[in-house]
Amino acid sequence: MALLVQKYGGTSVGDPERIRRVADRISRYRGRGHDLVVVVSAMGQTTDELVTLAASVTPDAVRRHPREMDMLLTAGERISMALLAMAIREQGLEAISFTGSQAAIITDDRHTVARIEEVRADRVRRELAAGRVVIIAGFQGVSRGREVTTLGRGGSDTTAVALSAALGAERCDIFTDVDGIFTADPRKVTSARRIPLIGYDEMLELAAAGASVTHPRAVEIAARYGVVVRVLSSLLEGEDGGTTIARRIPSMEDPVLTGVASEAGYGQLVLRGLPPEMTTMTLVLSRLTLAEVSVDLLTQVDQADGRRSIQLTVAASELTQAEETCQGVVAELGGEGVDVTHDLARLTLVGSGMHKRPGVFARAFQVLRDQGVEVHSVSATSISIILMVGGQDEDRAVRLLHEAFKLEEVGQ
Amino acid sequence: MALLVQKYGGTSVGDPERIRRVADRISRYRGRGHDLVVVVSAMGQTTDELVTLAASVTPDAVRRHPREMDMLLTAGERISMALLAMAIREQGLEAISFTGSQAAIITDDRHTVARIEEVRADRVRRELAAGRVVIIAGFQGVSRGREVTTLGRGGSDTTAVALSAALGAERCDIFTDVDGIFTADPRKVTSARRIPLIGYDEMLELAAAGASVTHPRAVEIAARYGVVVRVLSSLLEGEDGGTTIARRIPSMEDPVLTGVASEAGYGQLVLRGLPPEMTTMTLVLSRLTLAEVSVDLLTQVDQADGRRSIQLTVAASELTQAEETCQGVVAELGGEGVDVTHDLARLTLVGSGMHKRPGVFARAFQVLRDQGVEVHSVSATSISIILMVGGQDEDRAVRLLHEAFKLEEVGQ
Repeated sequence: MALLVQKYGGTSVGDPERIRRVADRISRYRGRGHDLVVVVSAMGQTTDELVTLAASVTPDAVRRHPREMDMLLTAGERISMALLAMAIREQGLEAISFTGSQAAIITDDRHTVARIEEVRADRVRRELAAGRVVIIAGFQGVSRGREVTTLGRGGSDTTAVALSAALGAERCDIFTDVDGIFTADPRKVTSARRIPLIGYDEMLELAAAGASVTHPRAVEIAARYGVVVRVLSSLLEGEDGGTTIARRIPSMEDPVLTGVASEAGYGQLVLRGLPPEMTTMTLVLSRLTLAEVSVDLLTQVDQADGRRSIQLTVAASELTQAEETCQGVVAELGGEGVDVTHDLARLTLVGSGMHKRPGVFARAFQVLRDQGVEVHSVSATSISIILMVGGQDEDRAVRLLHEAFKLEEVGQ
Repeated sequence: MALLVQKYGGTSVGDPERIRRVADRISRYRGRGHDLVVVVSAMGQTTDELVTLAASVTPDAVRRHPREMDMLLTAGERISMALLAMAIREQGLEAISFTGSQAAIITDDRHTVARIEEVRADRVRRELAAGRVVIIAGFQGVSRGREVTTLGRGGSDTTAVALSAALGAERCDIFTDVDGIFTADPRKVTSARRIPLIGYDEMLELAAAGASVTHPRAVEIAARYGVVVRVLSSLLEGEDGGTTIARRIPSMEDPVLTGVASEAGYGQLVLRGLPPEMTTMTLVLSRLTLAEVSVDLLTQVDQADGRRSIQLTVAASELTQAEETCQGVVAELGGEGVDVTHDLARLTLVGSGMHKRPGVFARAFQVLRDQGVEVHSVSATSISIILMVGGQDEDRAVRLLHEAFKLEEVGQ
């Protein structure tokens, strides 16, 4: 009898009928003798509705009243977990639901963006030992000061993986509305192929690059504790399929590239004519941090005239703030000016063996150039290549790269 | 600086605009230097919506999954308390919300109908001492086994009064949609008058008689601990008005009658020709208890022929079950038969000095008879007279009694 942790997202428990279908699935797993811990998100739009309610009482509730925001939002999973527990009990199984607090998901005290510090889960273990299916509210925890906290983005996935690590689960199944991780977004690239097995690092690159199936936080915890995660669709009836994320030893025949992901909504700034001192970069970054701008890509280029340029990309939502801040710094340092490019998309090619194959970089660049896609900047890590292109070129660029690297053909 | 506990019902916090108005009111009280503990119900229809959700997952959730039902329903107050805390903080006051569990409202473990055993409220005291307005979810508590419970009907009023007793509050204000307790239902009797001060016993009689403003459970706790309760409207802007419920020493000039209340939906059974033994009544009552029928009024009459009749009233919803059971008992005991009267209403006249004035009984009876209202049965306690009349006569009978006893004139 293996212990499985399963996470069902908001779409999977979006209405009573879907909740009953999740209960059916759990009942089938249970029938095969598995012990089950089930992590649920809030139903469908519940969280959005609660956020809207808060907004109608007070502007900017997350920043102004983070503790009360957590009290409010945690009502969402409370509803879905209780309904799911009822539906499972209707199947003749024993089931019990716990909030994050009751399950002793201990976090720091940073409301709305808490981090898990420890998972005690004593009550969870007791109920498992008593033969019950244990349902746990995702996304939420409790601080050492006994305050209710929420984990922010990717919270329910994070809860599921952290519980898997703490309970020594054989596997953590993340049920979602797509059947795993694909070589590219199937809505953009019709020949995109499901990746059956992917390593933690590659998954992290893909997730950071906008493949929003599982959150990087959850993958990071999985990597640290060696939790085997399977991402699969709750809409499909079978139990095969999906993508398994695990430690992966690459073989000689491994494909170079695993997939390509993209994300729109970026802007780029070039700060020209800055003094070539070490302190220049530090000053720019510290001013941006003060202005609460997150820098995505960052490159420093020495100009022909001996001065220096800094090129950086930021989220489009922070572009105005970033521009204002950079204008200030450039003026202060006696620089030449700031160039701004709006509406960029970020393409990421991910592959485990890529750093050993410099040809990949050149080929990607050339394919896009040949088809008239302007590349605004590039960057690379050991297992990924990032290219910024115009927003209007995003989907076409993804298809060009997917085709150029024959991602639809490679298999395992 | 007095400590006040204030309870706001579901209508008072029914939408964001009303929540802001409640926050305004709390801010005004706070401005006068009061310490405040605020108990809230779930917003408007939230509880009904959650019940409907549960019903769409499983039939009869309350009976089949009471623990999960409590998990589900407690989401309701969680939402309203967090929103109210935000709205109060927007007023520049410090505020913090607690669930029943966090406030340590300790109950027995009877899910959906739990009783409060103890109110520890340590965190509440600490936050009050730190100058904060403390918002507490009504209707909910936690068992000694750390399970979340709900208190059933009248739960939020009960939370407020129990907290008042535990914290030694100067007063417990119950805000509702009517401006206190009236001598009769103002919708039925236009001359009905607000009662400024009423004793616990009279209030209990009125509440039991269908005056649904405050729940008897809350009044019972108030009486036991001497909590002064004020019932008033959250829709009126002023702070006068309302009805104060407190220990009351009647004066010589006290009016005989305080008010008249009514409730429809009763039926009556007469079991005729039963053997005149002591065991007859016991058998009838035990059979009805087994059949889960609650007996309201009960009278035993010796017939002229030496046999015995038993007359009893029950809720209309239990009448069929009661009739079947009584038919069985009558057959078993060789009785003559069972007469059934459908659609009765229960009128109650409440007044503290009534038991010393037998004339009241006769007068009530006569007024109704004179106007052609048939009285099916009567009963009396030390401070109330109950008369069963036909459902079609309910409103007219209330008006007749209100007029006959000049309830619109008496005052304090």
